[in-house]
Amino acid sequence: MSETAIFEKLAIIGAGMIGSSVAQAARLTGAVNRIVMTDRCDSVLREANALSLADDYTQDAAEAVVGADLVMLAVPVGAMGVAAETILPFMRSGAILSDVGSVKGDVLSTLDPLVPGDIHLIPGHPVAGTEKSGPSAGIQDLFDGRWCILTPPPGADQSAVEKLSAFWERLGSKVETMDAAHHDRVLAITSHLPHLIAYNIVGTASDLEEVTRSEVIKYSAGGFRDFTRIAASDPVMWRDVFLTNKEAVLEMLGRFTEDLTALQRAIRWGEGESLEKLFSRTRDIRTRIIDAGQDEDVVDFGRHHTDSEGKEIE
Amino acid sequence: MSETAIFEKLAIIGAGMIGSSVAQAARLTGAVNRIVMTDRCDSVLREANALSLADDYTQDAAEAVVGADLVMLAVPVGAMGVAAETILPFMRSGAILSDVGSVKGDVLSTLDPLVPGDIHLIPGHPVAGTEKSGPSAGIQDLFDGRWCILTPPPGADQSAVEKLSAFWERLGSKVETMDAAHHDRVLAITSHLPHLIAYNIVGTASDLEEVTRSEVIKYSAGGFRDFTRIAASDPVMWRDVFLTNKEAVLEMLGRFTEDLTALQRAIRWGEGESLEKLFSRTRDIRTRIIDAGQDEDVVDFGRHHTDSEGKEIE
Ligand SMILES: NC(=O)c1ccc[n+]([C@@H]2O[C@H](COP(=O)([O-])OP(=O)(O)OC[C@H]3O[C@@H](n4cnc5c(N)ncnc54)[C@H](OP(=O)(O)O)[C@@H]3O)[C@@H](O)[C@H]2O)c1
Ligand SMILES: NC(=O)c1ccc[n+]([C@@H]2O[C@H](COP(=O)([O-])OP(=O)(O)OC[C@H]3O[C@@H](n4cnc5c(N)ncnc54)[C@H](OP(=O)(O)O)[C@@H]3O)[C@@H](O)[C@H]2O)c1
Repeated sequence: MSETAIFEKLAIIGAGMIGSSVAQAARLTGAVNRIVMTDRCDSVLREANALSLADDYTQDAAEAVVGADLVMLAVPVGAMGVAAETILPFMRSGAILSDVGSVKGDVLSTLDPLVPGDIHLIPGHPVAGTEKSGPSAGIQDLFDGRWCILTPPPGADQSAVEKLSAFWERLGSKVETMDAAHHDRVLAITSHLPHLIAYNIVGTASDLEEVTRSEVIKYSAGGFRDFTRIAASDPVMWRDVFLTNKEAVLEMLGRFTEDLTALQRAIRWGEGESLEKLFSRTRDIRTRIIDAGQDEDVVDFGRHHTDSEGKEIE
Repeated sequence: MSETAIFEKLAIIGAGMIGSSVAQAARLTGAVNRIVMTDRCDSVLREANALSLADDYTQDAAEAVVGADLVMLAVPVGAMGVAAETILPFMRSGAILSDVGSVKGDVLSTLDPLVPGDIHLIPGHPVAGTEKSGPSAGIQDLFDGRWCILTPPPGADQSAVEKLSAFWERLGSKVETMDAAHHDRVLAITSHLPHLIAYNIVGTASDLEEVTRSEVIKYSAGGFRDFTRIAASDPVMWRDVFLTNKEAVLEMLGRFTEDLTALQRAIRWGEGESLEKLFSRTRDIRTRIIDAGQDEDVVDFGRHHTDSEGKEIE
C-alpha cells in the first residue's frame, strides 16, 4: 500500500465479526499503521491472534486505547456505555471515539454525556454485515462498495469527521452523514424490521404441530430458507437493537401490520386485482436496488455460490 | 445419455420459467425422446425456439398434446382449468396429465371432474424456482437436489405415479407423495407466507414519506434487499397462489400475526430476555436446513456470486 495511513494507531474494542472485518480492511488498505485489539474474552483474543488480525492483543481495554488516534467500539449497542466508561479516562486528547453499532440515537445519548471536550465523539454504522459472529467471521472486503453512515453530534469537529470519513472510504465504503434519529428510522425499515419479521416467521414455523419441523426444513427452498438465514443472526446484538431503537421499530411495525391486515382482507375476499397490483408495484424497488449496485441480478432464491475452494466469488 | 427415456413424448403447456426448466432438464437427462412446447403467445414460442428448448412449437395446445405420454401444465394455478379443458379431448388414452402449480388442492378439485377415466391425473409441484419469468429464465439444473411433491388423488394408478416419480428423479429431484391438502398447509408456511410477508414489507417501505425511497434502496444491504428479491416474483402467479390457497394461508398468517403481536409487546415493554430467547431458538432451524442440504452455509446477506462470465457457480 503506497498510500499513507490516515491514523497512526487504531484500537478496536470487541473482536467480533465487525471488529475483525475492520481490522482486516484497515490492515489491507494501509488505513492505519498499528492495530490493537481488545476483547473481554481471552479465547476470542487468541482466535484473533491466530488470524493475525492486529499487532497487539490485550484483555485490558484501558491499556488498548492508550495513544490511539481512533478507538472503534465494536460491541453490541447495549454494551457501548460500559465499554466507553472503561476506556475514556485512558484515551489521549484529540483522539476520535467512534463505533459500529446498528442503532445511533441510543449510542449518542449514552456516550455524549461521558465524553470529555477534548475527545471527538463521532458515532458510525457500516451498513454491511453477515449473520455470523466472532473473529473468524470477519471479511476483509465486507465494506467494499457498501455505505457507512456517520452521525456526528451537532457541533462536532469538522476535521475529525473528515478524517473518519476518509478512513471508511479507504476501507472501500461510501460515506454519508446524517442525524442519528433519521438513521434510526431509515434502518428501522431497511434492516431492523426485516430482521424482526424473519425471526418471527421462523418462530411461527417452529411452533407448528400439524406441519412437522422436518417438513419445514425439507421444503424450505420455496422461500422460507432466505428468512432463516437472516434469523440466524446474533441474538444479543439483535436484542439490543430492538431494545434501543424501540420507537422507530414500533412505528414501522405498526405500518407493516396495517398493510398486512389489508392484504389479509384482500385474500379473504378474493380481491385478485388488488393483490396483483401490490405484487406488481413491489418489483420496481428491486430493479432500483440492482441499478444502485446494492444487490446483483442473479437468481438463486437463497442459494450461494462459491468456487471450488469454498471461497466466495463476486 | 445412455439411459432409456421414461416417456416417449412430453407436451409442455406454458413456456414460462418452470416450463422451460422442465424442457431443458428433460432434454439434458434423456428423460423423454420428444418435447413439444405450447404457449398462448407467439413471441414467447419464438423465444423458446431460439433457445432450442423443444423439438416442436405450436400455439395450438390441442395439437401439442396429440400422442403425448406426459402432458405437463406449467401455467399459473388459476389458468389450469381452462388449459385442461382445451387439451383433454385431444389427449391419448393412458396418458398422464400433470402440472407444476404451487397449490395442489385447487388444481385437483378443478381438474378431477374434467379428466376422463382413461387419463391419469397426477398433480405435482417441484419445490424449486426463482423470481424470474419466461423461457429464458429457465435453468437446466433447477430441480437438481430439490424436492418434487406429487399429490395423486385417492385411487390413482400406481404405475402411472411411479413413472412420473421416475421422470422427476431423472431430472434430479427427490420425490415425495402426499395428500393435496397437506401439501397446501406445508407450502403455506414454507413458501406462500414468506412471499406474502416479503411483498408486504416492500409495499410498506415504498409508501414511506419521511424515509425516502432512495434511502431505502441505498441502505438495503442491511437485510431489506433479501425481501425485495422474493417480492420481485411474478404477480399473476402469486395472485393465483393466494386466491387458491386462501384457507391455509389465512391460517398461517393468523399464527404469524399473533406471534408478531407478542414480539411487539416484548419490544414495547423492553423484555430483553424473551427477545433473546426467541432469537436464539430460531438459529436451530437454520442449522438443520443447512444439514439437510437445502441451503449452503455461505454468508452473504443476499449477495450473489458469479464467475467472470456472469455464470452462476455452485
Ligand atoms: N452483524 C452485522 O451484520 C452488523 C452490521 C453492522 C453493524 N453491526 C454492529 O456491530 C457491533 C458488533 O456486532 P458483531 O456482528 O461484530 O457481533 P459479534 O461478532 O457477536 O461480536 C460482538 C463483540 O462484542 C463483544 N461483547 C458482547 N457483549 C459484550 C459486553 N456485554 N461487554 C463487552 N463486550 C461485549 C463480544 O465479546 P466476546 O467475543 O467476548 O463475546 C464480541 O467481541 C454491534 O453493535 C452491531 O450492532 C453488526
Ligand atoms: N416461479 C417459481 O418459483 C415456481 C416454482 C414452482 C412452481 N411454480 C408454478 O409453475 C407455474 C408456472 O410458473 P412460472 O414461474 O413458470 O411462470 P412464468 O415464467 O410467468 O410462466 C407462466 C406461463 O403460463 C402462461 N400463462 C399465464 N397466464 C395464462 C393464462 N391465463 N392462460 C394460459 N397460459 C397462461 C404464460 O404464457 P405467456 O408467456 O404467454 O404469458 C407462461 O407460459 C405456476 O403454476 C407456478 O405456481 C412456480
